[in-house]
Amino acid sequence: MNLLFFLKITQVFIYFYAVLYYSFKVNQILYQNMAKFLTSRDENYAQWYNDLVIKADLAENSVVRGCMVIKPYGFAIWEKIQAALDKLFKDTGHVNAYFPLFIPKSFFSKEAKHVEGFAKECAIVTHYRLKNDETGKGVIVDPTAKLEEELIIRPTSETIIWHSYKNWIQSYRDLPILINQWANVVRWEMRTRLFLRTAEFLWQEGHTAHATREEAIEETERMINVYADFAENYMALPVIKGYKSENERFAGAINTYAIEALMQDGKGLQAGTSHFLGQNFAKAFDVQFTDKTGKLDYVWATSWGLSTRTIGALIMAHSDNHGLVLPPRLAPIQVVIIPIYQNRKQLENISATAKKIKAGLEIKGISVKYDDRDTNKPGWKFADYELKGVPVRIAIGPIDIENDTVEIARRDTLEKVTIPTGKTISHISKLLVDIQKNIYRKASEFKKKNTYYTDKWDEFVNILDNQGGFIMAHWDGTPETELKIKEETKATIRCIPFDTKPEKGKCIYSGKPSERRVLFGVAY
Amino acid sequence: MNLLFFLKITQVFIYFYAVLYYSFKVNQILYQNMAKFLTSRDENYAQWYNDLVIKADLAENSVVRGCMVIKPYGFAIWEKIQAALDKLFKDTGHVNAYFPLFIPKSFFSKEAKHVEGFAKECAIVTHYRLKNDETGKGVIVDPTAKLEEELIIRPTSETIIWHSYKNWIQSYRDLPILINQWANVVRWEMRTRLFLRTAEFLWQEGHTAHATREEAIEETERMINVYADFAENYMALPVIKGYKSENERFAGAINTYAIEALMQDGKGLQAGTSHFLGQNFAKAFDVQFTDKTGKLDYVWATSWGLSTRTIGALIMAHSDNHGLVLPPRLAPIQVVIIPIYQNRKQLENISATAKKIKAGLEIKGISVKYDDRDTNKPGWKFADYELKGVPVRIAIGPIDIENDTVEIARRDTLEKVTIPTGKTISHISKLLVDIQKNIYRKASEFKKKNTYYTDKWDEFVNILDNQGGFIMAHWDGTPETELKIKEETKATIRCIPFDTKPEKGKCIYSGKPSERRVLFGVAY
Repeated sequence: MNLLFFLKITQVFIYFYAVLYYSFKVNQILYQNMAKFLTSRDENYAQWYNDLVIKADLAENSVVRGCMVIKPYGFAIWEKIQAALDKLFKDTGHVNAYFPLFIPKSFFSKEAKHVEGFAKECAIVTHYRLKNDETGKGVIVDPTAKLEEELIIRPTSETIIWHSYKNWIQSYRDLPILINQWANVVRWEMRTRLFLRTAEFLWQEGHTAHATREEAIEETERMINVYADFAENYMALPVIKGYKSENERFAGAINTYAIEALMQDGKGLQAGTSHFLGQNFAKAFDVQFTDKTGKLDYVWATSWGLSTRTIGALIMAHSDNHGLVLPPRLAPIQVVIIPIYQNRKQLENISATAKKIKAGLEIKGISVKYDDRDTNKPGWKFADYELKGVPVRIAIGPIDIENDTVEIARRDTLEKVTIPTGKTISHISKLLVDIQKNIYRKASEFKKKNTYYTDKWDEFVNILDNQGGFIMAHWDGTPETELKIKEETKATIRCIPFDTKPEKGKCIYSGKPSERRVLFGVAY
Repeated sequence: MNLLFFLKITQVFIYFYAVLYYSFKVNQILYQNMAKFLTSRDENYAQWYNDLVIKADLAENSVVRGCMVIKPYGFAIWEKIQAALDKLFKDTGHVNAYFPLFIPKSFFSKEAKHVEGFAKECAIVTHYRLKNDETGKGVIVDPTAKLEEELIIRPTSETIIWHSYKNWIQSYRDLPILINQWANVVRWEMRTRLFLRTAEFLWQEGHTAHATREEAIEETERMINVYADFAENYMALPVIKGYKSENERFAGAINTYAIEALMQDGKGLQAGTSHFLGQNFAKAFDVQFTDKTGKLDYVWATSWGLSTRTIGALIMAHSDNHGLVLPPRLAPIQVVIIPIYQNRKQLENISATAKKIKAGLEIKGISVKYDDRDTNKPGWKFADYELKGVPVRIAIGPIDIENDTVEIARRDTLEKVTIPTGKTISHISKLLVDIQKNIYRKASEFKKKNTYYTDKWDEFVNILDNQGGFIMAHWDGTPETELKIKEETKATIRCIPFDTKPEKGKCIYSGKPSERRVLFGVAY
């Protein structure tokens, strides 16, 4: 009995040591891999971002200049974003539809400001047939198949949609129209970066039509609130809601609302915009309706959009030198289970437990991957799922089976705990909520710490030159001053926040009187 | 007591009469509306189809030649199709990704047959900037912004995807790749019809890469079975699975499998295809891998697609002179509840019951619309939801409230029953399953009745000229004969069905020996 007890104790110690050693090895391999994986975030943020997108298998540059290939793991994040947003849109009364990819060139001339904003950078279809080259050099454009009017690949769809709305709207009874479209759009950008700025990108664009100015403004506000809700509750991204200055307004809008987020390098990123278009497009496309009193009036419009650019924001806001940090609500895989074993028998025992846990989590609607591939070592897998930002990792080894425990690691803090197997489901259900909150809290603290209030130009310049961040400063309200500030510092007005109180002061640049502070920052 | 009883009886009679009369009026209005709504299916099938698409608010022609606008109700059907298919794809191990809209022109020359099939009809981007016309005529194409190599809007994505796969595949460990893409594609069709044939359309295209020929063939078969499963169980559309003859094969494929369905006018419609591409695209884009034995080989490929054309099939296969008939599993609204009332008090009572029923059905995952708009009369609503193919209609009037009953009408047979309110939920749960089955059964019977076996050319021609339908006939196996048959009758080989038994015979056209019957028909 004593001997047995001694043997048991010895066995436990041996296991304990083995696990410690193994865990050390694992970490060693892990950090070795890290070094190979990513450029350090502090050394070169831009390179870190690019490495991360490529190494985490999110996207890559395509052979077509400025276009990207969104790889399965990156697209799975977009699918989560789509599902969440689509539900928010439908819950607020919107329906989806689909309008043509092509816009006749002449449509762009109908709204004066719109053409200035979008005609400069677009893909133009001029022909509709290829033919075999007579000299045998493959295919060439058939010169006889020239379009009478060139077609523009949509950079945004206001024009083609309002051309349709003309036929759909006669009376106030036909209003409101609350349509959203999931689509690809093309803007011929010169300098592109994966997700952040690409020639072709995916997005959703809402286009609504209303009987009154008030109703359209209400819709514009509703949708910026939907975006803010999405950013904060799904992306775990604190945002500042506000108006755009005239310089930054959408081409053709009376007013543009935006949500602005702060990235870890101190730059701002516009993560969604909602535009009050007034009657501009209704006038351009002659869309009138009879109101309740029988009077004819132009229809009021809004449009609002959010794109794959958001994935760039998601990456840049939360990730670290180990890789992605994904908020659980947008993570394609929320929990990964990795077995640690040396022989078949051990794997069998571990697999039985792993599968039970997987099934239990899936009943709760949690997405789980059990990675029992024998092509890669546990250490490699640990590093790979950290790189991919999987929020929770469960590791199960022989000692765990012995003790009826599992090891749970959370991606956001990299903390590990060992808990009784029976408590796994309830522990992880709570943990995912906690991780979501913690990522948001961390980003909020970063934003708070990096938002400055200053009334001195030197300090303004100094902040932008050194640490970066958001600056709340006074502005004289003129586009000229904003442009000069941009020329000297690269900073623009990110937005005029909805929630700032009127406060008399002097413009940070011109010294002229100002009524309130606005939000400055260098933007992506 | 006697008097009370008499009064009660009289009241019931009055109600009864009122309901009868009302029901008669409703039907009258309904049929008056019908006449206005649709061309008769028997009079002019093509016009009936077109009317139906427009009047049921599914889609309309756009100002851009050959392109359509998919309106919210039509798009909601596409969303149901997408959700069902996407789940079937993911259940069979596939993931989604996204590749560029643009394909460099030279890519089309890389696969000899592919270029023949697709280069003839495509949209070509030649420039990337517009500028203001100096003479003030709006915007013109900037001649200095000419692309070095023209870009083709993808008509299908084999080339651009296999160009990416080259970088993704080195070893057998990188295989299989099982990717699907939801996208828009463009084929410059000359004669277009809403849903059936449009210049731009929406689809999904699967592109898989495999280590062995066998595995690729297995995948090709798996996916045609997924399509057949989808067609039969969701679209309620009986299909014939089979191989395509050489003439009808996908440009670049070794073998094309298709599902073929019969429309109510006796024409066939190809509703989905799955291609075994062999090593054709791997060779064109030089995609080689090291197999388990260390030997270098080209990768094996498949591709498979299903498009918005399917909505055309859905409409044409089941609908009638009253409008759409949608199978419940793809109906955006499965149940509509319409109140029949003359005053506010009645509406309140009806609404209370209606909302209880709606909530009860929604718990079961059934989509319900309660249409209490006061802008339209019940008769108009009855006709409109029949036109839109809503599978089940619940009507509730004052007499129903009195009797604690509801009237339930099914769209497929137009039959009505009155049942106790308390049984509504269970009745409708069963009814939806029954409607789904009945629509399938009806289409199956139609297909069976309109599939002919003949060995005589006169009869063959006669069938095609008069009633239309599918014909199982012998064929000598040569493309030449198939082309001649097409020239004389417009019929082509829809497919060589998987499940026909070898049977010696003589070609219906040439009289030469044949090993089996194949499926002929005139196709959309």
